[in-house]
Amino acid sequence: MRILLINPNTTAAVTEQAAAHVRRLIPGEIVPVTGRFGARYIASRAAAAIAGHAALDALAANVAGCDAVYLACFGDPGLLALKEVSPVPVVGMAEGALHLACTRGRRIGIVTGGVLWKPMLAEFVAMLGLSERLAAIRTVAPTGGEIARDPDAALGRLAAACRDCAEIDGADVVVLGGAALAGLAERVQPQVPVPVICSVEAGARAVVAAAGLAGARPALPATESVGLSEELARMLSAGG
Amino acid sequence: MRILLINPNTTAAVTEQAAAHVRRLIPGEIVPVTGRFGARYIASRAAAAIAGHAALDALAANVAGCDAVYLACFGDPGLLALKEVSPVPVVGMAEGALHLACTRGRRIGIVTGGVLWKPMLAEFVAMLGLSERLAAIRTVAPTGGEIARDPDAALGRLAAACRDCAEIDGADVVVLGGAALAGLAERVQPQVPVPVICSVEAGARAVVAAAGLAGARPALPATESVGLSEELARMLSAGG
Amino acid sequence: MRILLINPNTTAAVTEQAAAHVRRLIPGEIVPVTGRFGARYIASRAAAAIAGHAALDALAANVAGCDAVYLACFGDPGLLALKEVSPVPVVGMAEGALHLACTRGRRIGIVTGGVLWKPMLAEFVAMLGLSERLAAIRTVAPTGGEIARDPDAALGRLAAACRDCAEIDGADVVVLGGAALAGLAERVQPQVPVPVICSVEAGARAVVAAAGLAGARPALPATESVGLSEELARMLSAGG
Amino acid sequence: MRILLINPNTTAAVTEQAAAHVRRLIPGEIVPVTGRFGARYIASRAAAAIAGHAALDALAANVAGCDAVYLACFGDPGLLALKEVSPVPVVGMAEGALHLACTRGRRIGIVTGGVLWKPMLAEFVAMLGLSERLAAIRTVAPTGGEIARDPDAALGRLAAACRDCAEIDGADVVVLGGAALAGLAERVQPQVPVPVICSVEAGARAVVAAAGLAGARPALPATESVGLSEELARMLSAGG
Amino acid sequence: MRILLINPNTTAAVTEQAAAHVRRLIPGEIVPVTGRFGARYIASRAAAAIAGHAALDALAANVAGCDAVYLACFGDPGLLALKEVSPVPVVGMAEGALHLACTRGRRIGIVTGGVLWKPMLAEFVAMLGLSERLAAIRTVAPTGGEIARDPDAALGRLAAACRDCAEIDGADVVVLGGAALAGLAERVQPQVPVPVICSVEAGARAVVAAAGLAGARPALPATESVGLSEELARMLSAGG
Amino acid sequence: MRILLINPNTTAAVTEQAAAHVRRLIPGEIVPVTGRFGARYIASRAAAAIAGHAALDALAANVAGCDAVYLACFGDPGLLALKEVSPVPVVGMAEGALHLACTRGRRIGIVTGGVLWKPMLAEFVAMLGLSERLAAIRTVAPTGGEIARDPDAALGRLAAACRDCAEIDGADVVVLGGAALAGLAERVQPQVPVPVICSVEAGARAVVAAAGLAGARPALPATESVGLSEELARMLSAGG
Repeated sequence: MRILLINPNTTAAVTEQAAAHVRRLIPGEIVPVTGRFGARYIASRAAAAIAGHAALDALAANVAGCDAVYLACFGDPGLLALKEVSPVPVVGMAEGALHLACTRGRRIGIVTGGVLWKPMLAEFVAMLGLSERLAAIRTVAPTGGEIARDPDAALGRLAAACRDCAEIDGADVVVLGGAALAGLAERVQPQVPVPVICSVEAGARAVVAAAGLAGARPALPATESVGLSEELARMLSAGG
Repeated sequence: MRILLINPNTTAAVTEQAAAHVRRLIPGEIVPVTGRFGARYIASRAAAAIAGHAALDALAANVAGCDAVYLACFGDPGLLALKEVSPVPVVGMAEGALHLACTRGRRIGIVTGGVLWKPMLAEFVAMLGLSERLAAIRTVAPTGGEIARDPDAALGRLAAACRDCAEIDGADVVVLGGAALAGLAERVQPQVPVPVICSVEAGARAVVAAAGLAGARPALPATESVGLSEELARMLSAGG
Repeated sequence: MRILLINPNTTAAVTEQAAAHVRRLIPGEIVPVTGRFGARYIASRAAAAIAGHAALDALAANVAGCDAVYLACFGDPGLLALKEVSPVPVVGMAEGALHLACTRGRRIGIVTGGVLWKPMLAEFVAMLGLSERLAAIRTVAPTGGEIARDPDAALGRLAAACRDCAEIDGADVVVLGGAALAGLAERVQPQVPVPVICSVEAGARAVVAAAGLAGARPALPATESVGLSEELARMLSAGG
Repeated sequence: MRILLINPNTTAAVTEQAAAHVRRLIPGEIVPVTGRFGARYIASRAAAAIAGHAALDALAANVAGCDAVYLACFGDPGLLALKEVSPVPVVGMAEGALHLACTRGRRIGIVTGGVLWKPMLAEFVAMLGLSERLAAIRTVAPTGGEIARDPDAALGRLAAACRDCAEIDGADVVVLGGAALAGLAERVQPQVPVPVICSVEAGARAVVAAAGLAGARPALPATESVGLSEELARMLSAGG
Repeated sequence: MRILLINPNTTAAVTEQAAAHVRRLIPGEIVPVTGRFGARYIASRAAAAIAGHAALDALAANVAGCDAVYLACFGDPGLLALKEVSPVPVVGMAEGALHLACTRGRRIGIVTGGVLWKPMLAEFVAMLGLSERLAAIRTVAPTGGEIARDPDAALGRLAAACRDCAEIDGADVVVLGGAALAGLAERVQPQVPVPVICSVEAGARAVVAAAGLAGARPALPATESVGLSEELARMLSAGG
Repeated sequence: MRILLINPNTTAAVTEQAAAHVRRLIPGEIVPVTGRFGARYIASRAAAAIAGHAALDALAANVAGCDAVYLACFGDPGLLALKEVSPVPVVGMAEGALHLACTRGRRIGIVTGGVLWKPMLAEFVAMLGLSERLAAIRTVAPTGGEIARDPDAALGRLAAACRDCAEIDGADVVVLGGAALAGLAERVQPQVPVPVICSVEAGARAVVAAAGLAGARPALPATESVGLSEELARMLSAGG
């Protein structure tokens, strides 16, 4: 299985870190790709809106020959648009991790970096229809970008937030979300009384599970456009 | 009052049509602007995702000197991102029209062109938290772009859909949605037993009402980016 | 535009205060009217139930010649009944202010005077279908009537409640509700980190926005009654 | 047990009919009282709003010496206001019948007379928090008043509506609602494949069940008023 | 009226205690029966799942000649299965008590013994469709079994939990749940500022109210089985 | 990976059929086990309640040495109880299939055999918190048991129900549910315009995805019992 891993921000080091983490866990081939434009790190609604476009652009340019797409940003910018146009299954990191977490616990906690993510993720969870399963979303001040550069400095705060999800909010499982946080779940786990799930790993496992299911996407009308990358314009104008 | 009217698709004729309609109804000055890239007409999730970026780009390039922003596409691509970064109040066409319609009827029907809009609008209404007020969304096959080119051909279908919202779905008010449908509500009204609201007009009235309220947006962190227009990159990097 | 401003309590001073505040903000003519029977100040369910009748009575006696009705009591007693029988659009103070506040923030806080209002307003917000947008309702002990008599004594408590809505409950906009609190929002604002909206002003702006939309109310059956004011009995028996 | 049965409309014949039906089923003493003002039959929001006031007035004038109050109008005008001020437990006809029906079936159908009742009852069910249990509300054209005058003429339509609740809407129990419909459930039952519950009976049984439970209402502030009946003004001013 | 009181745990002393309490309050004949297998006290999901089977077994062996069934375990294991197969009405203790409590207060608190009950009861309340009416569920550490053996030791903690439901969670009525807690409500009441309802009593009152309503259960297919008690196997194979 | 596949009904042929289907798709070792008591086929609430006990019994007797548990009955009787006591992850067939289906489509249709399953599955979906994602549940008259004995006779009806989910209810993916329907999805697919997912396969893929995630279940109190199988009694009394 060949999985296109799209990091829709524009920092290649995050792409590589996530891809390396996934490769350790998943047998298939991982094809990593980084957004061609947009924010260095996605930590606001504006950055996420631009990333939706960048993820489409990355899909159009790289999906040929892949069996599935992993939208590897926790918050999944552009997720439904990618599912609409992609010729192969697409699963987002938050989408996959949260659905999988639902099989592990009744009430899900989410912890990530960057305070502006809290309302964005609450809306994303609502869009998934999973709000009833949500115990709490807790964010720490350092953004994913800052955590990527110095994970050790953020570990204590992340662990405390995970613990608060369990002890104050009643979560019985916590998803530690963010491409830049790949691998931190196991370091945080000893300080948290409920399972802590790595979103990068869980999302990847969900991609593998979903990719095997049969069934094509619905047909699309051809869409004319201006000012887009050649690959994206072609994908939109093709329709079908 | 100076209102920036952003049409986030890339068809200037639609922008002009909406601006002309608004000018007939609203006393202030209307500054119309068209998206610099993206779909000619927005009728899919991919086109809407790209339009969110285009709307941000249009805001960054044109908001200086304006008192309010009217995101004049029914479906409001990028709405929350624009609200996040804009120095002045932003109201979307669907957002404003739906909240105003709620003061007119208990159960709201929505009719627009383009069948792919139905689930997108259902999610938008849910994001607004107004799903309980929604009687039904009905779409007709011609897209907004096609209706703009030949409105007379679509009138009968639009009227029938509005009537079905009232008679089958129990709507007591119907919003006829779409920048390209500006002015059609009054032509459809005689065939519909409940009030039909023009989204272009209602959205504009909501902009005027909201613009007068005091209060600034929260401060934002500076965001570094690559590959964006100079104006948008500058707006993101400014933060504040 | 001629707006009938109905204060459904029986204290003319509150009517005048609200009317004066609205006249400063809205260009049209304001026709103020006070309830002919019921509580001096509405601060309980029983008082609100009686006020629904009084508001209908005031409408029947005064609506002739008006273009719109502003039900100027935060909590909107009798709102749906007035909409049902009124020949012109009716908007309630809480209804209008809350829908407008939704365009300004994602999560709405409400602050008002009188502890019995909290559950009543929670039910009203649910009736509007806006519960998902509600961050919190906080009340201070002095009722609207007490605040009207000595606003300075209540300012600190109102500001603290608004601040708690923002800092504890996560509201990003707060509606300061109550006819008797007209004009206090701007005095409270400096102590609150998110926008504070005056319900009297916002409701009035919503009346103006809604009044312009076309469309008549549905026909009504004639209703026979006993023991009502002549005007109300005539309005009910007319039906149509 | 002495039960005050309040009919908040102004037709004494309906009061007597409901009281007679209840007396056949319930061992205690029934004290029937009719509204002193308002609509002859309640079949609109305006009539219901006035009836809330009339029910409070009837309570104030007649509750002394009673052990419980049965608000015997399906739709329960003024229910929460009566509970607020009454010294003894109050149960509404729709409230009691619906909660009891929930123990009999999973999905509840409601059938009543008067088409304007449909949205009013939907809102009432939502206010009770029972919307998830509601299969459908179906109304027949004749109002309760018309059915009271000629029940035989309406039987066929009521039976058909009950049957549709079961066969089309999936109800597994149907509440036949309305004081004026007392005793019709057993006549309709043979034509309906699921249990049909008489709201007058079920509400009365719920009054008896609830009345036995201990516990006082919370204290109330004294409320000054003008223009009300002497008894109601005294009840409001007493507070406590 | 002859009421089969099923205690689905396997401790006869609890059955007797609940039956004795009910007999003091309800005029009819109480036929108590204890589960033939399963946990001594039900304080986990596994114990509750087994108790659902045991309650069916008890029903099959004892329902003949009874007019109604009282499933006398707060949490109501197997409730819907019993309703499905029983020839006479079945009401559960939590089901009946909660619906009756809804007529007494707007927001219901629940207090019981055994910390594992909290999520189980939250799911049960959601299954009833009453989540909107729920203020909070609070559990104390001693399980029902432990409270039954030494009620005095638990009284203080139960009272504190009830008080917290009122003062922190905003409950205006509290249900003290559990067969083993029969009679403790009145002892706890003096320390709680809102009414405290005994679930054993309230459930029994709901059984009496519901039992009088007419209407049969739907027909069932015959079901073949292996390894069940003779009575249960016969009931399942009979169908009809 | 060693997966315990529990069929909680008492028909070994269904167990073998499901196990064989899973073995074709999943690399690990499948350990199939059949319920020791209960209905031959589960097609009612009573049968499902008994099956919850039987599944616990099967778990206790067979989980030693396994890495994960697949509760292989669509409707997942006893699911939360198994998760509570199992030393290794447990995923139910409906649970796993529905969460995975959510990554493939926005609105999920469910088709299965046996008309009594419809309300049971609706409640199960609500318990998962996925009701917003549900387009419809459609059942065909033949039960799973009947379909297992003669699948060809049911194929047409299953295909029609799947098609109706798509064309009438708006599902964009359909889960064909039931252990006895293993392998029918691909036969039905050609007649359905949206993807049809085999619940046996999808559930198994979800088991594999979930099994890899780290984290232990919370500790449990020891529970004394009577009349249970030796293995189950020992598991309950062990606690820990």
